[in-house]
Amino acid sequence: MNWQTAIDQIQLLDVNVMKEAETRLDQLTKPQGSLGMLEDLAIQLAGIYQTTRFHVDPITSFVFVGDHGITEEGVSAFPSEVTTQMVYNFLHGGAAINVLTRHHDVLLKVVDVGMKDSIDNPRLIQKKIGQGTRNFLKEKAMTQQEAIEAIQVGFDLGVMEVENGAKGLAIGEMGIGNTTSSAAIAALLLQRSFDEVVGRGTGLNSEQWQHKKEIIQQALQFHNLQPNDPLEILATFGGYEIAAMTGMILAAAYKRVPILLDGFNTGASALIAAKIEPKSVLYMIASHQSEEPGHRHMLQALQIYPLLQLNLRLGEGTGAILALPILRSAQSLFQEMATFEEANVANKIVSQN
Amino acid sequence: MNWQTAIDQIQLLDVNVMKEAETRLDQLTKPQGSLGMLEDLAIQLAGIYQTTRFHVDPITSFVFVGDHGITEEGVSAFPSEVTTQMVYNFLHGGAAINVLTRHHDVLLKVVDVGMKDSIDNPRLIQKKIGQGTRNFLKEKAMTQQEAIEAIQVGFDLGVMEVENGAKGLAIGEMGIGNTTSSAAIAALLLQRSFDEVVGRGTGLNSEQWQHKKEIIQQALQFHNLQPNDPLEILATFGGYEIAAMTGMILAAAYKRVPILLDGFNTGASALIAAKIEPKSVLYMIASHQSEEPGHRHMLQALQIYPLLQLNLRLGEGTGAILALPILRSAQSLFQEMATFEEANVANKIVSQN
Repeated sequence: MNWQTAIDQIQLLDVNVMKEAETRLDQLTKPQGSLGMLEDLAIQLAGIYQTTRFHVDPITSFVFVGDHGITEEGVSAFPSEVTTQMVYNFLHGGAAINVLTRHHDVLLKVVDVGMKDSIDNPRLIQKKIGQGTRNFLKEKAMTQQEAIEAIQVGFDLGVMEVENGAKGLAIGEMGIGNTTSSAAIAALLLQRSFDEVVGRGTGLNSEQWQHKKEIIQQALQFHNLQPNDPLEILATFGGYEIAAMTGMILAAAYKRVPILLDGFNTGASALIAAKIEPKSVLYMIASHQSEEPGHRHMLQALQIYPLLQLNLRLGEGTGAILALPILRSAQSLFQEMATFEEANVANKIVSQN
Repeated sequence: MNWQTAIDQIQLLDVNVMKEAETRLDQLTKPQGSLGMLEDLAIQLAGIYQTTRFHVDPITSFVFVGDHGITEEGVSAFPSEVTTQMVYNFLHGGAAINVLTRHHDVLLKVVDVGMKDSIDNPRLIQKKIGQGTRNFLKEKAMTQQEAIEAIQVGFDLGVMEVENGAKGLAIGEMGIGNTTSSAAIAALLLQRSFDEVVGRGTGLNSEQWQHKKEIIQQALQFHNLQPNDPLEILATFGGYEIAAMTGMILAAAYKRVPILLDGFNTGASALIAAKIEPKSVLYMIASHQSEEPGHRHMLQALQIYPLLQLNLRLGEGTGAILALPILRSAQSLFQEMATFEEANVANKIVSQN
């Protein structure tokens, strides 16, 4: 299905089921509200799934990979080749996201949506739209058509995954240079200063960081866009992987499953998705707040609250998977704790022993 | 072994192993430092266990139960009887800590160290020192001898558990009125205002909260203690469960295993333990920062950083178990991620395919 048609069918959460969940939470053997954000999470999940008997598993974690023309301008601590090297690492099982998805029983899928190199390996999902984006200091990173197609890649994969049984989706990315894309998108959509939204990425020193800010400033001036056309912003500054993640967020909302965001780059995708269809925000779960300074402002703008703040800045979807035990715990508590009524009965039984 | 003798043997963490861990972290396939607090955690665990091949499992979670004479003064939203009712709930498996320990594969042990009532059930560990503390508005909650004995209860259980194979300990409590004890301890040890350290506990309204602050203020004036005698402070304001948790913290440090703290009440135990033996702090893991406002100040004073901030205020050790997946994830990442060298070799192998 065409994502541009599908998004008209994205709905609000089920308020009646959410009220039912809230009532149940207040009957559980604990002081009211004492489970804090886990209670909010249980209510959100009930609203997403339209049932209080929700199950978040199985979950599939996607890593979308793309290269960035802007790396020509020296905005990253690592050369573009590292994207390819890390994809080999994913395929070999040695990266952080491999360890975490194994440890937490999550299926991992890696998608080439716009790598410069090509890797012929059956474990890599081949959905290349272009061989890296163009240098957005000089021209648009993608054509609008390319951006639309990259969104479709993420959308189709998401819809298919849910139709094949996934009850939740997690997203992450790999692409040297992509925090520069995301910072440009954030600066424009959040209308914030460069100091607030441009970070050190994988580890720039102060001089390199200053340079990154200048490059983004020049690029924003050069293209001179308004913050009201998300597709144009995405095409101009975005990466293929950022577009694909936007598509997967929209797919999750369309298929009514939660979408676990990761850090700064998934945040840029979430901002674009929210501009395209604001109701998609209701399906987002902010797994963590990244060390990358602009991420906080993204989450504030989206009005979603991070479950973790562990100073992570790795990407790949690692923060999403680290937060997953909190979702699973919220689910177990909600569904397995005794109510006051049940406990009272239990007390009588036990005390007769 | 007598805890007062044993604590002289508590040692610093192993700095050489910690350096080894740090070196390994920088060789893993990720930007340096990008795993944030998980890297600090891996280094701490290596230092505690004196090996980089550490394992945090199996872990045992203890809930210490005690009643509080101060409840006579109307400082809690729930009557004292709820302590007993919740113990029945623990024994029946319906409480939050039951759900979480089951879900996260942790052994749960419940200890009566000072309940008013007695429950004759083989699943309840019987270590009662007194039938609830005395009302500390009028007299000392415990004698110093009772406090020393209650510490010994926690210490002995901790040492035995580690000798029987536990690699980590988690603590939590149940005892209506105990946030009033903990707030008095915190006010004295942290030298902070009542507004900063006295919270709403399980759910006081503004008037009741004001009353709780006044009671604590009167009690502090009445006993007029100095902040330099932790045992006297513990005996005067503490609960049996707070004392026992102090003992378990000291046992963890003595036996070189990590101790997962929970919220505000375990924080009071940690403050006392830190005053008794400052090296014990090195073995503490601050699982979360509670909604109870004084908890933040406790963690700041201890200079330990919470892994989670989920606005929890439930107790029972629930926050400790919710943070456990982060420890386990830090361990897996540290031990299973590929190094740059390994990944490079892997790349060559994969690319020849």
